[in-house]
Amino acid sequence: MSESPNTPKLSVIGGRPVRPDGVDKVTGRALFGADFAVAGQLCGRVLRSPHAHAKIISIDTRKAKALAGVKAVVTGADFPNLKSEVHEGGESSSDLRDLAMNVIAREKALYEGHAVAAVAAISPKIAEEALRLISVTYEALPHVLEVEAAMAADAPILHDHMRTGGVKPAPTTASNVAKRHIFERGDLSQGFADADVTYEGRYTTQAVHQGYIEPHACVAQWGEDGQCDVWCSSQGHFMIRAYCAKILNLPLSDVRVTPLEIGGGFGGKTTVYLEPLALALSRQSGRPVKMVMTRDEVFRATGPTSGAAMTVRLGAKRDGTLTAAKVELKFQAGAFPGSPVGAACMTALACYDVPNFEVLGWDVVTNTPKVAAYRAPGAPIVAFAVESAMDELARQLKIDPIELRLKNAVRDGVIAAYGPKYRNIGYVETLEALKASDHYKAPLGPNQGRGFAVGFWFNIGGESTASVHISEDGGATVTTGSPDIGGSRASMQMMAAETLGLPVERVRAKIADTASIGFSNVTGGSRTTFATGLAVIEACRKIIADATRRAVGTWGVEADKVVWTHGQVELLDGSKPPLTLADLAKESGKTGGPMSAEVALNAQGAGPGFGAHLCDLEVDPETGHVSVVRYTAAQDVGRAIHPAYVEGQIQGGVAQGLGWALNEAYLFDRDGRMENPGFLDYRMPVASDLPMIDTILVEVQNPRHPFGAKGVGETPIVPPLAAAANAVRSATGLRLNDLPLAPPVILAASDLAKAAE
Amino acid sequence: MSESPNTPKLSVIGGRPVRPDGVDKVTGRALFGADFAVAGQLCGRVLRSPHAHAKIISIDTRKAKALAGVKAVVTGADFPNLKSEVHEGGESSSDLRDLAMNVIAREKALYEGHAVAAVAAISPKIAEEALRLISVTYEALPHVLEVEAAMAADAPILHDHMRTGGVKPAPTTASNVAKRHIFERGDLSQGFADADVTYEGRYTTQAVHQGYIEPHACVAQWGEDGQCDVWCSSQGHFMIRAYCAKILNLPLSDVRVTPLEIGGGFGGKTTVYLEPLALALSRQSGRPVKMVMTRDEVFRATGPTSGAAMTVRLGAKRDGTLTAAKVELKFQAGAFPGSPVGAACMTALACYDVPNFEVLGWDVVTNTPKVAAYRAPGAPIVAFAVESAMDELARQLKIDPIELRLKNAVRDGVIAAYGPKYRNIGYVETLEALKASDHYKAPLGPNQGRGFAVGFWFNIGGESTASVHISEDGGATVTTGSPDIGGSRASMQMMAAETLGLPVERVRAKIADTASIGFSNVTGGSRTTFATGLAVIEACRKIIADATRRAVGTWGVEADKVVWTHGQVELLDGSKPPLTLADLAKESGKTGGPMSAEVALNAQGAGPGFGAHLCDLEVDPETGHVSVVRYTAAQDVGRAIHPAYVEGQIQGGVAQGLGWALNEAYLFDRDGRMENPGFLDYRMPVASDLPMIDTILVEVQNPRHPFGAKGVGETPIVPPLAAAANAVRSATGLRLNDLPLAPPVILAASDLAKAAE
Repeated sequence: MSESPNTPKLSVIGGRPVRPDGVDKVTGRALFGADFAVAGQLCGRVLRSPHAHAKIISIDTRKAKALAGVKAVVTGADFPNLKSEVHEGGESSSDLRDLAMNVIAREKALYEGHAVAAVAAISPKIAEEALRLISVTYEALPHVLEVEAAMAADAPILHDHMRTGGVKPAPTTASNVAKRHIFERGDLSQGFADADVTYEGRYTTQAVHQGYIEPHACVAQWGEDGQCDVWCSSQGHFMIRAYCAKILNLPLSDVRVTPLEIGGGFGGKTTVYLEPLALALSRQSGRPVKMVMTRDEVFRATGPTSGAAMTVRLGAKRDGTLTAAKVELKFQAGAFPGSPVGAACMTALACYDVPNFEVLGWDVVTNTPKVAAYRAPGAPIVAFAVESAMDELARQLKIDPIELRLKNAVRDGVIAAYGPKYRNIGYVETLEALKASDHYKAPLGPNQGRGFAVGFWFNIGGESTASVHISEDGGATVTTGSPDIGGSRASMQMMAAETLGLPVERVRAKIADTASIGFSNVTGGSRTTFATGLAVIEACRKIIADATRRAVGTWGVEADKVVWTHGQVELLDGSKPPLTLADLAKESGKTGGPMSAEVALNAQGAGPGFGAHLCDLEVDPETGHVSVVRYTAAQDVGRAIHPAYVEGQIQGGVAQGLGWALNEAYLFDRDGRMENPGFLDYRMPVASDLPMIDTILVEVQNPRHPFGAKGVGETPIVPPLAAAANAVRSATGLRLNDLPLAPPVILAASDLAKAAE
Repeated sequence: MSESPNTPKLSVIGGRPVRPDGVDKVTGRALFGADFAVAGQLCGRVLRSPHAHAKIISIDTRKAKALAGVKAVVTGADFPNLKSEVHEGGESSSDLRDLAMNVIAREKALYEGHAVAAVAAISPKIAEEALRLISVTYEALPHVLEVEAAMAADAPILHDHMRTGGVKPAPTTASNVAKRHIFERGDLSQGFADADVTYEGRYTTQAVHQGYIEPHACVAQWGEDGQCDVWCSSQGHFMIRAYCAKILNLPLSDVRVTPLEIGGGFGGKTTVYLEPLALALSRQSGRPVKMVMTRDEVFRATGPTSGAAMTVRLGAKRDGTLTAAKVELKFQAGAFPGSPVGAACMTALACYDVPNFEVLGWDVVTNTPKVAAYRAPGAPIVAFAVESAMDELARQLKIDPIELRLKNAVRDGVIAAYGPKYRNIGYVETLEALKASDHYKAPLGPNQGRGFAVGFWFNIGGESTASVHISEDGGATVTTGSPDIGGSRASMQMMAAETLGLPVERVRAKIADTASIGFSNVTGGSRTTFATGLAVIEACRKIIADATRRAVGTWGVEADKVVWTHGQVELLDGSKPPLTLADLAKESGKTGGPMSAEVALNAQGAGPGFGAHLCDLEVDPETGHVSVVRYTAAQDVGRAIHPAYVEGQIQGGVAQGLGWALNEAYLFDRDGRMENPGFLDYRMPVASDLPMIDTILVEVQNPRHPFGAKGVGETPIVPPLAAAANAVRSATGLRLNDLPLAPPVILAASDLAKAAE
């Protein structure tokens, strides 16, 4: 919407060219994780714990190994015992010891589905038979699933060695609390004392899964010479390389990981599950091993995000000015530490300029699958709590909810609740754009309500490598190490075409394996278009400098007599025809060799994302069924490189957020076994559940990116949980603080409310 | 042998580490052309002309297309008609129109085996049945196979448009002579007038095949969006990309070629045969298409090298000083112009400092498969003639044959017969090393003879791209666009390890596809260790500069206070511990991002190769069978990066040269159909046919390469043809001028000689 006066006219950026990955995906040519095969591969399968918490007394694999067709059987004993060591992985960090123990259990199984052994055999049938022949002696232990139960003094302890971090003095007794986080500013008591109105609520959310359609899959080959190959779908093949190498004690350069197409990740494919098992099975068998999870395994053994219990207390002046906020977050980490509660604490008040606050977070292990990153990790959970509370505050104050946000909105120059000073943020513009929308003024029908909520995500930069190669006919190939999850091939192609002055179809964007391109962090943190894009643009600029140098040499003129413009080098005096990239590429052998540039960088200044959402929904008073009838998401996207993908990102985030709000949840039986590990019982929204999601792209450009891009992919999932809950409140008068807002919950609350009338 | 005083002590170069491709190849993990498959692929087959020369009146493909299971049928009509345009391809250049017409015939079939149509079907059986259902109406034409017959005035004309090039005035009538080459110096008549002794001989060689064990094979996929993938074995995937794109009129960046392991090329895999057909079949069928040649097809339809007819006349003073040389070379080109006669002319007298000479060459089309490059293209053929003549001259002059070469040897500062001034050549050192060998002094047994010959090859540089990536643990991955035919992964790994100061096992060398690395010429011309090696070394030096910069930044000192040495950056004052590459890599995220460098260059100054060979053989007087009993090859290799591979290159070249000398030849029936298209009838030497080939590595370093490397792979095939013929002369007294020296030939010559006694 706003346009920097310094921006040159763009001819490619902001257009909507045909998506470069589209034909591949709709015709089935794209090779996803399970589509890849190599000759002689074995079929790998995993034996998983039936217990939510158990000591592993012994594992007898002799019968399985003796079965004809079984080529390898591995258990935890086949893997090195790693020291506790934090590995920074871009968006998230992992303790390598925990990571390895999650890949395959050692002394204890910590959740139902925890890998205990793995086999490789010549057929799936034999592999499954071999699993049945493995005899594991367990000593079942009491388990704990819920976060607050796990924090109780008498809770079963998952890790005897674990002491709560971030607490002084350091505790001397074991606890399920892995870490305490605190962010504070000002004087909280004074803040609440200054308030004319306060509101406090307690909120819970359930564990939900990222729900990517493609299950985890890989093929791994361990060479007799120790050279390993892995082919898999992930959010980052360098991450796969690093984790496999660490878990198996290999040099990084001995592992080559080739990325396959990824069928959804949403953060859940930023870690390893099968790959180290497949490598270990390949080492033992001398054969390549392919492993593909079932949906059941994906649910039971891969990362959902945390279930949480939260309290929010807000204090405000009569005019709406916030004086104090107190937020306490208790997050399930699953079987090993590392819930997103730290990020949740940081985002809790990121939209608010509030002088006095305390945000306290608890990272708590539970006998559930280790959580993994899920799109804006932690932020939707805490936003559900804070934005629900803000909605009630607005009601108490009788202030329009958008006005209340505007009143307390962070702006450029404000110190964010999580530390840095905001610059070039588009939050107010986003609020105003939504306020000005038709949707905000539209009337509601019977049983309908309208909810409003805002959301924030940091967006990150990080390390990326890109190379650009000009072929002899003047076309360009742009190669990166970033898997394309949400359209990065399109954005790389467009940024390169814009920079080089080429038509977009003369640029092809490719993703190279770990041996063919420099290190690149995972595609996550909404970093790719920003950070990998910067590397692409820098590499294109190197090409331009090189092209200009070659033209200067060809013409035999001074460097200051030529200029690069519109994809060609021109003589300022116009005395000769310009030299296009194609002209120069054709002669490149004579002017120094191929035209090629590679740039590796650690990008900074991604620019945070702010979103503001309106949700209209209708509640059926008979059944409690909620239908979303209209939804508008406004977001500051910096600059939409390919607006259709940006809109798609926003629509996808909203869809996931609404699923989380309305239906999704892990359900466990009394033994801690998941009861709904399939898409029939774990209810994600499908196309027919949702209306068209309208989007408003607000473009407050990011000066740290040549085309003004900010991250866009995560922010859209942050507001919908609260927007939906606030809309149910608007439709029904019921303030529901426990997700999901499934029909039985709504009916029960409605009945209770009626009974109380 | 010689060591430049400026060369630092080397710790990796010159060692013999375990070959990085070895385990892959002996365990079957390496994927060669025919090992690759993609889901849904069809089987492609080629219909080939049964005629050596015929007009194609019509092709009826209707029945084939109607056969159930047939998904595509293509003929020449499915390909664009290209303009005649020379495409420089590194070692060789091709006329694109001819190349396209060789891939699939249009109006005429020009040799038996010329592709006429191709089909893709769901099974090999159906594809073969479809070939039978294609009805081609031919009008058979008279054909011509031998080069001198093809030059005759009344010869059948292959190309009505062809006029002999290089002749003034330009001819007005069509001819089978494509081009005349001439190299001359001094006054030839005066040179012969000055001679005390002259010798003249006439020589012929037969077409021989490169004989790579792996037949041509590829998988190609043409996407509905025009994006194409090709997986194949070749000497250069950028060459495959360029030729496919040109033949099918595609932008280069729309074709991604992924190299597979190559099972021998020897020059014969520097062009395309199947790939454009597979792409066209894929376009028509919408499915990936796999094509694999049979051995029969490899012989009938892929490039052998030329058969030739040659005359050599030499004049010399009594003391052995050459005064004049006249060489005339007539080379078969096969069905389209482009025999290696030009290179043969240039190498003919490259070993000799002779004041007066004329070298005349004729490039002649014949109704035989279009020749392709074969290891030192043309040089072994002409060396057979010149070195046989030199041997007779030495006999006439009663001068030791090595002394005669030393007398006339080219040295630094001499202007080569083909133009440039020699620098840093090791020819004399090579002759002297061989002269000093035990072999040269060893006695011979009954019926044994000893032959000596020398050989020359230019070696080339050319365009290469390399990237080096340092992983977080300090290991390095070196990536190039050069297929590894003769050990280039080993040499790249070693040169990178030496430059970076890493142990060799901390460096892995990989080959990337055309989308992942910059342009690189074919692996050919003995260029790869030199040229691609230069790019690798330059990229490592960039890494060192980057590492030093990061250390300077980390320490906060001036740049002149640190030094890179032994793989680490050290403070000159020793005040802090050094920072190794691993130290710096671990922190690279904080010091600018991943450590990565890419270099593209056009390398010059490869340094020519000279070889001198001794061949001892025994001729069975009963059968005419020749047994090679001892063989020593001395060669100036500049610097042997990995001596075992260099020795292997020399041994392989000698083995091929001996096969050419003693047994190999294309045999045709009267209709121009090849009679021996299989390894049973086309007799290549096997291990039991040959003794251990001894090698002497002479190391006169190349100052244009940091480690002194010169090309080594081609020179070794140049001397053996003459060395063997000269040894037969020594053993039997028979001067045989027509290859191969097969038992019937020797027996017949022997009988003739006896009859003449």
